This record gives sequence, structure tokens and C-alpha cells, in this order.
Amino acid sequence: MNDIMKTLSSQKEWEKLINMSAGNPLVLPELLDMWKKHSRELIDSEEYWEVIWRYWATKWYGKFLDVITKYIKQEFNHDINPQENILITWWTQSLYFMAINTYWWEMEDWTFKKIFLPQNPDYTGYQGMAMTDDIFIYNEPKFKKTGDHSFKYEIDFDNLPNKKEVWAILLSRPCNPTWNIVLDSEIEKLHEYVNNTDIPLFLDSAYWTPIPNLAFKEMKTVFHKNMIYWLSLSKAWLPWERVWIAVWDSKFLKPLESFQSNLCISSSKFGQALWARAIESWDLKEISKNIINSFYKNKFKIFNESIKKFMPDNIPYYVHETEGSMFTFIWFEDLPISDNELYEELKKEKVLFVPANSFFAWNSKHSKECLRISITVDDADIINSIEILAKVINNVYKK
Amino acid sequence: MNDIMKTLSSQKEWEKLINMSAGNPLVLPELLDMWKKHSRELIDSEEYWEVIWRYWATKWYGKFLDVITKYIKQEFNHDINPQENILITWWTQSLYFMAINTYWWEMEDWTFKKIFLPQNPDYTGYQGMAMTDDIFIYNEPKFKKTGDHSFKYEIDFDNLPNKKEVWAILLSRPCNPTWNIVLDSEIEKLHEYVNNTDIPLFLDSAYWTPIPNLAFKEMKTVFHKNMIYWLSLSKAWLPWERVWIAVWDSKFLKPLESFQSNLCISSSKFGQALWARAIESWDLKEISKNIINSFYKNKFKIFNESIKKFMPDNIPYYVHETEGSMFTFIWFEDLPISDNELYEELKKEKVLFVPANSFFAWNSKHSKECLRISITVDDADIINSIEILAKVINNVYKK
Repeated sequence: MNDIMKTLSSQKEWEKLINMSAGNPLVLPELLDMWKKHSRELIDSEEYWEVIWRYWATKWYGKFLDVITKYIKQEFNHDINPQENILITWWTQSLYFMAINTYWWEMEDWTFKKIFLPQNPDYTGYQGMAMTDDIFIYNEPKFKKTGDHSFKYEIDFDNLPNKKEVWAILLSRPCNPTWNIVLDSEIEKLHEYVNNTDIPLFLDSAYWTPIPNLAFKEMKTVFHKNMIYWLSLSKAWLPWERVWIAVWDSKFLKPLESFQSNLCISSSKFGQALWARAIESWDLKEISKNIINSFYKNKFKIFNESIKKFMPDNIPYYVHETEGSMFTFIWFEDLPISDNELYEELKKEKVLFVPANSFFAWNSKHSKECLRISITVDDADIINSIEILAKVINNVYKK
Repeated sequence: MNDIMKTLSSQKEWEKLINMSAGNPLVLPELLDMWKKHSRELIDSEEYWEVIWRYWATKWYGKFLDVITKYIKQEFNHDINPQENILITWWTQSLYFMAINTYWWEMEDWTFKKIFLPQNPDYTGYQGMAMTDDIFIYNEPKFKKTGDHSFKYEIDFDNLPNKKEVWAILLSRPCNPTWNIVLDSEIEKLHEYVNNTDIPLFLDSAYWTPIPNLAFKEMKTVFHKNMIYWLSLSKAWLPWERVWIAVWDSKFLKPLESFQSNLCISSSKFGQALWARAIESWDLKEISKNIINSFYKNKFKIFNESIKKFMPDNIPYYVHETEGSMFTFIWFEDLPISDNELYEELKKEKVLFVPANSFFAWNSKHSKECLRISITVDDADIINSIEILAKVINNVYKK
């Protein structure tokens, strides 16, 4: 990743490259128009002065909490109490940081329990959320081939860690970087594992459905006592107002609210008010359904068609099942060189993919055989980059 | 303070009370118009989409850093490097929290050094910024009478702690709650104390000059290597965009930037962009000078006139010198009852002042003889509440 940042920071290099490494949402005019509309209405409203300046007010924008409550009731038929079950922070990591530093040390004998990552690979951002290293437990990656050129990651239920060693479970669903959606049945099994314990099960839901609607496969949303959902608008274009939402049991959430009050009071209220308007008007749900989902679905279609068109059938490549998020993930079985070397070969041909080893909790043979490929680029870049990939990979296997 | 919150949360109680306890900036139409104007221009600008959504951008709004740099150069003739010397966080406390957790443990033998509060009383919000208690060193309050009915706090330079015990020095200037501005000469002496050490001297500058211009006495701003200035727009009405600015030596600041990146990436970019526009256009400096400063100066005038008019001359009351912030502070020498009891007596007469003991680092005779009085209320409330105070205090001393 460092090399990618370095390469891209040189403008001269950047101009000549096809960059398939980023994961930035693309410019969707309907989405910008919607945010502009709600921004304007908010500024012209009577409540604007309350939003930006009313000093000694509650740190949450009350209407926002009510809107989220209504949304969860309507979409998932689940009742929450807006004053008890919602915490607004500035990022997924902010919650983990506060939760770890609040609850971790309450465990037996000051021995540190660990965070179990049942998906391997998963999001790299989970590093650095504690003030110490060595905080994770994980298994070898488990996956199965689902077709001649497709595969899917699974959770290894035969090797679950001893509950006494586990402080929390953490996974992203849909998953960055793998395009995987952990199965409903897997979620149920994880819930059985944590049920009647104090082990929280964090479900990082940045690509959730129906907002922003970046799941391309049915996924059920169930709520249980130990389950924490993380909602974000970063993929629907409001990353910089730093408003993330946790839905959790109040017993765990209330102490974190106090922690946060001491640390920084709250997230931006302008962001909270914009969220509230976009959700309450159902604009955002409509756009998520009609614009965001179909826009990226089309990108996936182009990606899959390009793969079929260019990749030689005799190469043992496996594309992860098209399930959700803004990335695709490709595995080359018995790749003769490492993923880092493949990255370098591809860079020579002026295309950047992310060698996927950094997304794995540890290195194994499999972890050095994969690439993460973003689909948040022009259609032509997808087509051209896959053509180049096919050519390069053909040479790599020939040698 | 808890009782105040409880009392005010009952609407029925609230309506009958004069509330002199808050410190909320008041509604100044010129200020709201200015923020609305810049909000509209920002939303209509080409850069708006960059501000709210450009995902993989730097976490800081570059123009904002440049504007702050220019502002500090122009106002204080001091050169900083926008990439090296500025950190944007969400609150004063956020910096302290990160600084304590980054640097504290690097001290000798894992013995915790402490934070020296040279002003006593000072801002209560400094509690709760570490993940442990007992983090402060302080002296008995030191003050001198400056007239028949006025006084001023001082720093007790005869009782400075041993430098080996001090991790940092922290003070607000102008001060909440006391209306004090630590003298230029006192700042110089504190600088001598920390010079050639690694002890940071944090200057909490929420009421700074020329923005928001809530100093009513000349105060010099000097920059030294160990000195950290904290700038905020919360008093100029942008509290809820959570944009605070630290200006510090890059050696200390850069590790905190990494801490913050792991914790939450950054503050709201909408807030950063608004700040940039308001400062760059010099609108905010003009309004700070012509509107904010004179508006509150007038409140202080009304307060001082009311004190002179109503307070019996034979009562040993002392008002703190009118120097800065949005509060006044009054000391009743040899008060026959405690400040908490005085608060209760005043509440019976339907006026709320804050008993000041909670602002002192420890309780002493003096700490139970003071009230903090907000001036961010209607003129009539100031006049009426002081009339009531005079009546109550007269009875208290008579008994």
C-alpha cells in the first residue's frame, strides 16, 4: 500500500496509470444533487442556527436519533430506544477504541483477551485501534471453490477459539476487501457462540442494505442483544461529516457515551441534520436503490464480462462470488510468483491492483496469491486493466 | 452543577427562573447571517463535492491550514508550517487525551508525572481527560485585592512544583470561570520554567483575540517552542462542527496526528471549509471586533453598573477584574454560609448562579466563598439578578 501511495503521489506517474487500487465512491450526479438540496434546505430552515451554534444543547440532534429509530423499525421490524440504543461517533474505529479501553481491562486477572476475526481476510483498518499490539485471534483462511473460476470465503466453525480468550468478535458485512457477504446461517452460528456471554459481535455495515445498498445478494439483518451494527454514510458520499452510528444494547453503550463526552462531546451536527433529512424524506433510500446499487451492479457486470472475455480458461483463477462492497477479489491458485511481485509486473504495464497479502491476518500460501481490484473507475479502465491482467498472468504462469 | 441541570430540565421550573448559570453565546444576528452567507457560498461552489465526499483525500482541508497560517503570521508575526505545526481535532480535551496517552508513559520509571494547573480555579472540563484519576498538581488559590470591591487571581511562583514531577502545564487564557487573563509577565515566567525541558505549556485560547475577541484587556500572544495554543470557534458560534486547532511544535504534534488517524481520521470538513471562508474573507475578524467584543463589553458594563447600584458597600464582596471570557466571578470574603448554601438561598428567590467550589482543584475557605455569574443573558436579567443577589447577600451577612 505504501508503494501505491508513493506512486500515486507523483503526478507524472499517476497520469500514465490505470488505478484499480482506490475504493472511492464515484461521482454520481443524483447523489450530489440530493446532498446539495438538503444542505440548502437546512441552511434556509429555522433550525439552522440550532444546528450550528446552540451551545448548551444535547450533543445529539434529537430528530436524527428519531429518524434512525423509525428507519430500523420500518426496514427490519426491530424496536430500539433512541435515547438508549444509539451512539453517534466519528468512525467505526472510534467505537472500537472506546470499547476496548472501557471494557477490555475488566477481564480476568488483567490477562488481555483478544478480538476474534472470524473472516480472514478482512478490513485492514482494524489494526491500530488499541494502544497495544497483538490483539487479534484468527484462523487460516477458509474458502471453497464454487465454480470453474469462482470461490467464496467461509467461517471456520471447526476452529472457534476458546470463549475465555475472546473479548469480542469483529467482521465487515458486506466485506471490504473480499466482496464476501457472511451467510445468514454463519451469522446465526456466531450468535449462538456469543449468546449468554458478554462477548460483543461487531458487524461493520458500511455497505449495508437498504442504505447505501451495496449488497448484491440477499442478506438478512437480525438484531440480538450482543450484536452491534455499525452504519455509515461514507459510501453514500458523506464521509467528511464524520457521522457513524452504532446500534447496541444500552448496558454497553451508555459508558461509551460518557467516554465520548469527555473525549470530544460529539460528531458534527450539520452531518447529523443532513442524514436526518436524507433518510426521513426517503430520498436516500430511493437513490440507494435506483442509483447507487444499479450503478455499481453495472460495474460488476462489466468486470465479470471482461474477466470472461480476456482471462485464459486454462489459468487457475478464481473470482470471489459477487456479493457486495466496492471491491472484487481474485485468487490465482499456485501463483508462481508472490502477489507483491505480481503487483510489480502489473505496474510495469501501467496498471495498479492491490496485492492482497496485507488484508490477511497472517501470511500463508493463499494470502500471497490474491489481488484486490476496485470497481470504482471508468468502464474503460475496468476493461483495459483486465485485458492487461490477463496478458500478464498468462506470462507469469507460462514461465 | 447537577442540581442546576436537574432544575433546568424541568420546564416548569425553568420558566420561573432567571438563569445566570449558562455560558452559551447569545444570538447575534450579524454572526448568524455571516455563517449563513458562507454556508450558502460553500454549497454553491465548485468545491462543495470535494468538501463532503472526496473520499481518498487528505483529511485536512488544505486551504484551511493555509488560512490559519496566514492569520497567525499577520496577527502575531509568527511563522508556522501548515503541514507541520497544525493539528485539527474535535475539542480541547481531545488533544489532551491523545497527548497524555501518547507521552505520559514515556516518563521515568513508569511513575506518573502530573499536570500542573497554575491557575486555581480554572476550567472544570479538564477533569476526565486521562484514563486515571489524580493527575493534577495545584497550589492554594492566590489572589490580591485590587480595589475596595475588586480582586484578581495570580500565579503562585513561590510554590512551583519540582519540574521532575510535572508532565505538562495547562491553563485557560482568558479564563473560564474567573474572567482572569494571566499576565504577560506570568506567561513569560511560566515559559522560563518550561524552557529547555520537554514540558508542554498548554494555553487554552477559546476566548482569544482577535477572534473571537473576548479579551477586554490587552494581552500579548507570544509563541515559544513548548507552548501550545488552542483555537476554537465555539464562542463565535460554530461549536457543533467540532473543529478545534492546535498550534504546536511538529516533534510533538506528528505522533498525535497518527493517533488521531487511527482513532477517527479527522474533524468535519464542512466546518473546516466554513472556518477558512470566514477567516480568509476577514469577515470573522471584523465581526469579532465590531460585534462580539462590543456586545459583551456592554454586558459587562451593565453587570458592573448593577453591582455598584445594588450591592451594599459594607458587604466585603470582590468582583474579579474585568479581563475576558463570558463569565464574571464574585468573591464574598468570610461568607457566613457555604457557596452551595448561598446557591440554595438564591434559588429560592428564583435566580440561578453557579456555586464556584467545583472550579477549584481543592476545597478551601476561599473556594466556598465565590459564585460564577454568566453575562450571556438579557440585560434585564443581569440587572434583576444582581438586585436579588444584593438582597440575599445582605440578609446572609446580617444573620
